[in-house]
Order: sequence, then C-alpha cells, then structure tokens
Amino acid sequence: MDGYIGWSLALRQLAMGNEVCGIDNFSRRRAVEEVGSWSATPILPIEKRLSILQKEYGDKISFHKGDLVNPDFTNDVIGKFQPDSIVHLAEQPSAPYSMIDQSHTLYTQSNNVMGTLNVIYAMKNYAPKAHLIKLGTMGEYGTPDMEIAEGFMEVEFRGKKSTIPYPRFAGSWYHWSKVHDSNNVAFACKLWGLCSTDIMQGVVYGTRTSEITEQNKHTRFDFDEVFGTVINRYCAQAVIKHPLTVYGKGGQTRGFLALEDSIQCMSILIDNPPEAGEYRVVNQFDQQYKVSELADRVKRIADKKGLDANIQRLENPRVEKEEHYYKADHEQLKKLGFKATRHIDDEISVMLDDLMVYEERIRAKKEQMTQLVKWRDGSDKIQKIANPLILSND
Amino acid sequence: MDGYIGWSLALRQLAMGNEVCGIDNFSRRRAVEEVGSWSATPILPIEKRLSILQKEYGDKISFHKGDLVNPDFTNDVIGKFQPDSIVHLAEQPSAPYSMIDQSHTLYTQSNNVMGTLNVIYAMKNYAPKAHLIKLGTMGEYGTPDMEIAEGFMEVEFRGKKSTIPYPRFAGSWYHWSKVHDSNNVAFACKLWGLCSTDIMQGVVYGTRTSEITEQNKHTRFDFDEVFGTVINRYCAQAVIKHPLTVYGKGGQTRGFLALEDSIQCMSILIDNPPEAGEYRVVNQFDQQYKVSELADRVKRIADKKGLDANIQRLENPRVEKEEHYYKADHEQLKKLGFKATRHIDDEISVMLDDLMVYEERIRAKKEQMTQLVKWRDGSDKIQKIANPLILSND
Repeated sequence: MDGYIGWSLALRQLAMGNEVCGIDNFSRRRAVEEVGSWSATPILPIEKRLSILQKEYGDKISFHKGDLVNPDFTNDVIGKFQPDSIVHLAEQPSAPYSMIDQSHTLYTQSNNVMGTLNVIYAMKNYAPKAHLIKLGTMGEYGTPDMEIAEGFMEVEFRGKKSTIPYPRFAGSWYHWSKVHDSNNVAFACKLWGLCSTDIMQGVVYGTRTSEITEQNKHTRFDFDEVFGTVINRYCAQAVIKHPLTVYGKGGQTRGFLALEDSIQCMSILIDNPPEAGEYRVVNQFDQQYKVSELADRVKRIADKKGLDANIQRLENPRVEKEEHYYKADHEQLKKLGFKATRHIDDEISVMLDDLMVYEERIRAKKEQMTQLVKWRDGSDKIQKIANPLILSND
Repeated sequence: MDGYIGWSLALRQLAMGNEVCGIDNFSRRRAVEEVGSWSATPILPIEKRLSILQKEYGDKISFHKGDLVNPDFTNDVIGKFQPDSIVHLAEQPSAPYSMIDQSHTLYTQSNNVMGTLNVIYAMKNYAPKAHLIKLGTMGEYGTPDMEIAEGFMEVEFRGKKSTIPYPRFAGSWYHWSKVHDSNNVAFACKLWGLCSTDIMQGVVYGTRTSEITEQNKHTRFDFDEVFGTVINRYCAQAVIKHPLTVYGKGGQTRGFLALEDSIQCMSILIDNPPEAGEYRVVNQFDQQYKVSELADRVKRIADKKGLDANIQRLENPRVEKEEHYYKADHEQLKKLGFKATRHIDDEISVMLDDLMVYEERIRAKKEQMTQLVKWRDGSDKIQKIANPLILSND
C-alpha cells in the first residue's frame, strides 16, 4: 500500500470507514532508486505514513512488511486478517523496467506470476470467500485492428458460436506477465470457485484525490523514463521547461483516467463483488486520447501558467504502432455506478501547480527523464540516448 | 535429452547423421522417484547411455548436465554449440504433478516459464538464427465447443475481420504454464525476429522407434498416476492384470500419436524451419480417440495375449468434461510431409510384449498407479484414493 494507487486507495477506504490492512515490500522505492530517480512528491517513510493514519483512524489501519512471493508470509497475513476484498497491486508495474535486460525480464515475470499464485493459494486455503481485485492493464489487449471488448467476446467460427476470452496482444514482458496472471486467476476461479475482478486499467494521471489535501498525505509521483507515465511525465517536463517528448508520430491512442476516478472505480468494485466462482473483467478508463493530443493539452495549460512548453518528436524505441485503430468498451464500471468526476484539463492544471512546488526535485533528476531503454535491443543495461517518453507503464 | 521423447529424438537425429548436443538436469528421474515410482523400462544412467552413443557416433553426440533456469548455463551451452535447431522438451511435463499442492504449482510455472525465457534470451544473444522447436500441448486448447484450429483463427467481430490466436482453455497449472510459454515465445519472435515452431502435441504412446531395437537403447516408460499417460498406463495395467481404469463416462476425447510418429514429426520440423521472425504453430497428433474406446482396444489386444483385462470406471478427480465435442485440425505437419507409420493396435501389441518383460518392475510400483491427486482439493500431499487414471499429462 506504499505505491501510487495503493496509498491513495488506503486513504479512501479508511475515509469510507473500512478497515484496511496493507502489505508492501517497498520494491517500488528501490526500483525507482535503481534507475536513479525519486518521487517528485517527497513521500514519507512508511512508519510516518502509518503514524499519521493511526492518529486519525486508530486500529482500523494495519500494515505488514513482506513479499507476496513468500508463501508463508502471504498465507499468514491473509489468514489472520480475513479480508472481504484483496486488492492486488503488488506487481512490478513498469513495461520499460521489464525490457531493460534478461534479469529484469526474469524478475518481472517471476515476481508477478509467483506473487499472484501465492495470493490465490492463500485465498483458497484461508479466505475462499474473499473477492480478489487484481490490477491488470489495458495494455494486455494491445492495439488490435478491431473494437476491444471487456474481457470476453462472442465469435462465430466454422458455423459455431462461442464466447472466448478477448485475445491479448501485449507489447512487453511486463504486459505479458499480466496476461499470465489473468489466465491463472481465471483458472483459479473455475477450479476452486474463487471470485475475482480483473481490472484492465488505462493510464492513470494526477496528484490528487479527495483525501490528498495536505503535503503529508501525498502519494508518490514518478516522472522518470522507467516508472513515469505519459501525462504525469509531460507535466513534470513542463514544470522544468524540458521539451514534452513525443515518440514518433504520436498517434498512439490509449484509455486514461484521473487518479481520483481510478480510486472511485476500485471502491465501487470493492462494494460490488461478483458471485462465487465468477471471473469478471472490467475495462477501467474514462477517455481515450492520442499522445500528441495530450502533449498539446499540457502545453496549452502550461503556457497559461507562463511555463512556455515545447514539444519535441523523437524516434520511438518501443514495439508499438504509432497510428492505429483504437476503440475500447468500458461499460461495466458505468453499470456499477462509475461517473467520471475529473476533467483532464482541470487535473493537468492542478498537477502543474502541485509539481511546481517540487521543481527542484524534478530538476535534480532531469537526467533520468532522458535515459532510454531500447526495447528491441534488449541491451544489458539502461542506455542513455535522448529525451524519451514512456507512453504507458500502467 | 534423458526423457521419454528427448532420448528417442536424440537417437533418431544421430541416425540421420546430425550432430546432437543434449541438456538435462534429471528432474524427471527425481520427480518420478518423488512420487514413489520408476520407469517400467530399466533405463541406464546417463553416463552409460552416452558411452553407448559415443561408441556408435563418436563426437557427434555431446551432453551437458545443467538447468535451463540458470541463465549462465543456458547462455554458455547455446553460445558454444551454435545449434541450427533447439528442441525444448525441458519442461515439467505432468499436469497432475502441478496440481499436487502449492509448491508443485509454483515449481511447475517457475521452472517452465523461467527456463523458456532463458532459452529465448540465449537465442537472441548467442544464436539468433536458430529455430526454436518448443513442446507445447494440445491441452492448451482444452475442449472448446468449436473446431480447434492450428494456433490461429480468423474471426469477425462487430464487422471487422481479424486473425487472432486460437483461444486457450487449459485445465491445469501445468497446461497454463505452457500457454504462458507460448505467449512469451510468440512475443520474442515479434520483438527480436527469432523463429519458432510451437508444437501442440497430442498424447504420445509406445515403447519403440526404429532406433530402439535393443534393451540398452530403451527410452523411459512411466506408468504411475502422475507421469504415465493414458494408453501407456492401460498397457502397464493390463500386463499386471490390474483393471484398466476409466474416469467417469470415459467420453474424454484427445489426439494421440505413436512415439515413432512423434519423432518423425519433430525431425520434419527440424528439417523445415519457418522464416526469421515467424512464430508457427502445429497440432501434432495422428488420430482422435475417446478414453473408453482406448480401454476397449487395449482390453481386446491384451485378451488375445491371454492377459484377461478388466475395465473399471472411477469417479473423475480432474476438472474436465467427460463428454464433449472435439475436432482438431492437424494439417500443417501433413503439408510438410508427415505420414503416420504406426497403427494404434499394432503399437499396443508391441507395447504389451515389451512391458511383459518388465512385469515385476510394474508390479513393484502397483501402489503408485492407485494414488490420486485430487485436482479440486489442492491438498497438501498426494492422497491415496483408488485406481486413478491420468488421461493426459502430455
């Protein structure tokens, strides 16, 4: 619960009156340090974060330091806490990180697949009625040349109709690890009657939720090439007057949603579990945008604040189409009551204001915006090239 | 190359005049010992196997003991040997073994996924033009209610036509590990331009190939509940007058092929690599049979030899349909020249004759035919129940 979404969700769930038990092994802090960067927002050590929450919420908040790849730890925490819902955000979350070299690929797939297997075994043995909310990614689907359904599609093949899982065309070792997990979780539901919601989430942006009103409640905010995502990175670039860097033609289209709305969606899912044995897939995003359109938006809003942003186009190191068809369903969460509460322009404006406070912290790690993982090269270390942009490491 | 198919294929490739470099970590010998059984055929230790081959083929045969999950070992062997083809049979191959408990699930997925990732990284870095022939399984497809294509299918969805990977409906943690590997290998071909043939193999049966003519060239033959496959186990049961055990209704239908023909198919694939960057899928089997039909066949042939076989129906511990539609394409290998050379009845007759020589070895491990892994239970150890039958651990 020490990460970007985990911390924000813990704050929300506590504010809603729910009891929260957090787990973290602090791998995100270590990995961002490994690539030479840090959070733009100076987040507190976990002990201080917890003491702030405990003052407000008493024993409704608990926390265990540990690693899901350790079966004993996972069994122990889940067995003792007896959760109604398990929100599994504990995966290595960066596509570029998984593409750095062989050891990062192995780490990503091993950490994600083994951690998730341990969670579902712990559920089966100690909390079989819990609802597993697992964070997948819209990136599992890739960019197929047809509409993207929510998890499943009906097809006709040689005269027979059948409902099949929507095909996955993932584009990194990280994204494939999430596909492996989706497959494993779906099988666990069938095998043992567990229930799960697999969230295909779009790219999340923003610094704020209703609960993040003071500095000491800030969630982390990554802007480096490996862990920062596209809108967040453009805003950080604008704040230090670094060019907003667009890969190739900039026609890459994805689904996006504000941090506040991501937290809203997850809270809705927590309150609305599926039936026992059901494996449910939701596509969790608000609007689709092209990357070039996002750069234009950030520039326009930054310019109004006197930041004078430039846009720079760079060669694309990723394995992805730069112009493509993209139309994804996202009806399931709306049916459960989700309504977007943030307009992207307002959120960009708030982010720029928030990040200007930490301009020096961003400037200090400026170099880490301009290192580049060459996906096709699979080189044995992070290579410095120039001004990269990460479209999505969701 | 110490396994059922690996040894047989090495003999064939050497007989064809090719140079062969084998790898094995002997996990199969250990795992069969772990479940309390052994090979019906008393296979020689690897040192003796090698010395027999070296007498005949000199330095055309080499061997390295080691584990593919060790990147250094894998890089080293592949880098030094510079193979034209890499036949990857080095996965934990048993579905029931993967269902024993949590540690066997973790081992299976970790061993298979990490081993395969190391192979594709070694290829990329040290042998990018090699042809990776990876053993998948027809079990990846499961038993969908429509015809099974070879790897890919064309569908129409909301007015757009698209070619998508044929959906996977695997039925064990082992089978899913092979799906994960298929996905990872397909991505490596796209990412790095490697070429691979992914074999969706049916259940293999038999004791013989053209090269297995003497006792000291026998390949291993498993008949225990965890590592034995269906026809092989029926024959072993018949030889010791144990009832032939059919799960449930016995309508489970799968594709099957004789060991000789499996080796023929793989040799054809070795001789016919796909283009650089191509990920090719072949469905490798000869004929489809129902389990109950196979029991009847073995009984009929065994009876002629005076073995007086009985058939016993048992409750099915597996997560599978006992009666279902099944029609799978298998055209690709025929187009490359595959012609089945063995009739199932002849092969069963040869197997019974071969196994009668080792009747005492089978009888000594009779108990291991009658232990049972309860798939839905996910119990923490192998539970003894009664007279199980493994339909397929291919």
